[in-house]
Amino acid sequence: MKTNYPLDQEVDHHEASSSRDITTPTKQLVITRVISSLDLIMRIIGVIGTLASAITMGTTSETLPFTVQSNLFRAQYDDLPTFTFFVIANSVVCGYLVLLSLPISIFHVIKSEAKISRIILLIFDTVMFGLLTAGASAAAAIVYLAHKGNASANWSAICQQFYSFCELISGSLIGSFVTAIMLMLIIITSAIAISRP
Amino acid sequence: MKTNYPLDQEVDHHEASSSRDITTPTKQLVITRVISSLDLIMRIIGVIGTLASAITMGTTSETLPFTVQSNLFRAQYDDLPTFTFFVIANSVVCGYLVLLSLPISIFHVIKSEAKISRIILLIFDTVMFGLLTAGASAAAAIVYLAHKGNASANWSAICQQFYSFCELISGSLIGSFVTAIMLMLIIITSAIAISRP
Repeated sequence: MKTNYPLDQEVDHHEASSSRDITTPTKQLVITRVISSLDLIMRIIGVIGTLASAITMGTTSETLPFTVQSNLFRAQYDDLPTFTFFVIANSVVCGYLVLLSLPISIFHVIKSEAKISRIILLIFDTVMFGLLTAGASAAAAIVYLAHKGNASANWSAICQQFYSFCELISGSLIGSFVTAIMLMLIIITSAIAISRP
Repeated sequence: MKTNYPLDQEVDHHEASSSRDITTPTKQLVITRVISSLDLIMRIIGVIGTLASAITMGTTSETLPFTVQSNLFRAQYDDLPTFTFFVIANSVVCGYLVLLSLPISIFHVIKSEAKISRIILLIFDTVMFGLLTAGASAAAAIVYLAHKGNASANWSAICQQFYSFCELISGSLIGSFVTAIMLMLIIITSAIAISRP
């Protein structure tokens, strides 16, 4: 069997020198690295979005300088449980993105062939996408109600009184929805990266 | 080089006859088929959930038999834009699950090694998961408000008057949230199926 060795090596060499086998893994690696870098950029945008949303919603308050007929003189996010949930959801997603996902995402840029860590990250991303979408949509429903009111349910549009508070909380939804879209794209690109051999 | 051929074949034969190479693809196939079947079952649960939610929310109405101080005598889903969005979101997701995802899911059970169709389905699943979560959460925020009211914003709890209407719309949220959880599990199992060689 000793005589097989040189031939065996020759077969290996022959296989390795075929053009398909040399270029494809390099090309694959470049594509996977591009996907990993995009993933990292989208996560950084997500961090900024959720942080901006949580801070805007959490710090905004408006006190009316005069007494009105309504029993509402000072508007703040914790007046409405939905806005509290919005702040919590954004904080949790922001914390996850910074503490867990960014380090693993940087690891993926360096080590492109990692697969199990990508699946674990995809599971967390999906859960966080659900949490953030839930928080943002619930807040959007209440903000819409605050702007328009509802005649059928006899709910008045409080934005007529708290104009600047309403402007700020409406703006805070943007960061949250941008991050939700980023997380959706992250899930899709992760799936493509996982599918690569 | 002609003498290499028998040796080359011998090497191939040796590789093919190793136990790892014979059993692993069959085992892989069984696991992928189990995942595909689970995927199909979860989609069927999803269809039932969204259909039940859309029908419950869409058909519920309550007319009060007496005149009350409030200007609200008849409650129906289209009184609140959020509930209309909820019905639309559930209908769209239900339509997608039945018309597009079920046929492809059945195809995946038969042809387990399909990958590109799995990625395409995962992209749609992610978008539908976002849509359904948004619809369900927005409706939940309004249902919560209808039950509890909000003293700060001077919004009254309309469920005190429309008790049976509120019970039914609260129940209709369940199907929607169950489907959202199913879609989350579908995305995760799809990613695992995609990762399989």
